[in-house]
Amino acid sequence: MIGPDIGFLVERIGVAVFALSGALVAARKGMDPFGFALLATVTGVGGGSLRDVLLGRPAFWIQDPTDPVICVAVALALYFHGRRRGLAFFGGGGRILVWADAMGLAIFAVVGSATALAAGAPPITAVVLGTLTATFGGIIRDILAGDVPLVLHREIYVTAAFLGAAVHAGAVSAGLPGFIAGAAGIGSAFVLRALAILKDWSLPPYVEAGR
Amino acid sequence: MIGPDIGFLVERIGVAVFALSGALVAARKGMDPFGFALLATVTGVGGGSLRDVLLGRPAFWIQDPTDPVICVAVALALYFHGRRRGLAFFGGGGRILVWADAMGLAIFAVVGSATALAAGAPPITAVVLGTLTATFGGIIRDILAGDVPLVLHREIYVTAAFLGAAVHAGAVSAGLPGFIAGAAGIGSAFVLRALAILKDWSLPPYVEAGR
Amino acid sequence: MIGPDIGFLVERIGVAVFALSGALVAARKGMDPFGFALLATVTGVGGGSLRDVLLGRPAFWIQDPTDPVICVAVALALYFHGRRRGLAFFGGGGRILVWADAMGLAIFAVVGSATALAAGAPPITAVVLGTLTATFGGIIRDILAGDVPLVLHREIYVTAAFLGAAVHAGAVSAGLPGFIAGAAGIGSAFVLRALAILKDWSLPPYVEAGR
Repeated sequence: MIGPDIGFLVERIGVAVFALSGALVAARKGMDPFGFALLATVTGVGGGSLRDVLLGRPAFWIQDPTDPVICVAVALALYFHGRRRGLAFFGGGGRILVWADAMGLAIFAVVGSATALAAGAPPITAVVLGTLTATFGGIIRDILAGDVPLVLHREIYVTAAFLGAAVHAGAVSAGLPGFIAGAAGIGSAFVLRALAILKDWSLPPYVEAGR
Repeated sequence: MIGPDIGFLVERIGVAVFALSGALVAARKGMDPFGFALLATVTGVGGGSLRDVLLGRPAFWIQDPTDPVICVAVALALYFHGRRRGLAFFGGGGRILVWADAMGLAIFAVVGSATALAAGAPPITAVVLGTLTATFGGIIRDILAGDVPLVLHREIYVTAAFLGAAVHAGAVSAGLPGFIAGAAGIGSAFVLRALAILKDWSLPPYVEAGR
Repeated sequence: MIGPDIGFLVERIGVAVFALSGALVAARKGMDPFGFALLATVTGVGGGSLRDVLLGRPAFWIQDPTDPVICVAVALALYFHGRRRGLAFFGGGGRILVWADAMGLAIFAVVGSATALAAGAPPITAVVLGTLTATFGGIIRDILAGDVPLVLHREIYVTAAFLGAAVHAGAVSAGLPGFIAGAAGIGSAFVLRALAILKDWSLPPYVEAGR
């Protein structure tokens, strides 16, 4: 755990920024308000739901549906704000989508790892689950919207999620306090993803020898 | 619950009409009989399976596989009927697909809500789960077939699922008998979706201010 | 069960060949090493994870993450081998993809059926679950990569998975030893799929009467 109260707050932020990224995609597609709500909710709670289901437990929002409500609120706020005043505040929507996605990616990599460790899974599982669930929300958002998943782009993406989950699981296994491990994991994932966005960093894409 | 016996029957009808919609998409894609069976089964039992898995329980058809068998039977019946006599009875396939989908949407919105409430989840969760699972069968059908999900169209779609689940969960919370709540939920979702289809009703799509 | 030790080995082979098929798709898309790892892992463990989740249990790799590690190792080996020496050994990648996919399909149809029977599900459920989970890994691989799912092609594909699961579930129900049932199921599915590939066999696609 990242520390019960701060961890709780951080996870809500992750849900909200992923929901924002879903709503921004809905805006680009010209969807109606309920389309906004659906895309925001699926993106916001999708990764965490997959994590819980793979761990063999009910999705985290079943008993307390605060998170889906946050997602719907974010979606409707963006819909009505954008219709009345435009999305200039959001840099037209394109740039903020990338950053909201980056923040959600970093947070969910660590929350996924922390949840797996708390459930008694070994550290390698925590890294796999953190990476999978951090990338899944964005993947399902892009597939539902009919876009090529961001994950396929060559900029460092899966790599950042992996780094965040690995730093967190490694730090916890090394005995560091949850708060430090969580901050280190989120920070390293976000910084790596930010550098990839700002400096167009990427890992070498696959090119076959002799071509 | 909608009332044990009628609810049971209604859910089977929902599975069958969603299976029919899957088989009609398979027909449009010129798939083979087993492709028909797969697409019909995934569409027919996909939404309910997602619902059960999010609630932390096995899919409803694991212990009693009646529903997958219904789906396969519907798929093969359509395949062989269409090859021999054409789909004129189904208006060429396009129109009936929309209506089968509408009926499945209305039924699964209420069945999802009822199942969540019966599992002890709060009413808001019932609305979220009803909406998600009613739309999921059609989403996965369209993605598997390589189409843009119907849910993205601007006609009222997610909205109808939401209305059905909200009417049902609200009526049950208000103490109405399950049969009334179920009929009201299915009726309101289907009528709203039918009006959207017949009158081209839609909610205002997102248009940015100043454009 | 197929027999504890051989069954265990066969399932690892199935995970590895599906992971290989995922990595080959990543190569075709020019992804980076972590993209390779993600696509290989999702393809390798996706079908089995769906099977477990539908049965209401945690995914099989949560307590023992050997399989995701195998998937990542296969992905990185192919990435670095291909960059240095090319994929000539793999026939350029296209042909081996089809065969790795065929082998994974045959193995997971039987493993899915065996797992369902071991969990106490009836034979029909075992056939449905075997078919679904054998085809799911490849479906999610193709969707993530932005391709049309192989399952839609008219060559015999779902049919082979169905045959393998049905032969296995039937043989077990008839009282045959697990080893025989498993070998018969995997063999029949693989031979049918191989014939479809080599001889361009297919079932009659849907064509409407009177056209």
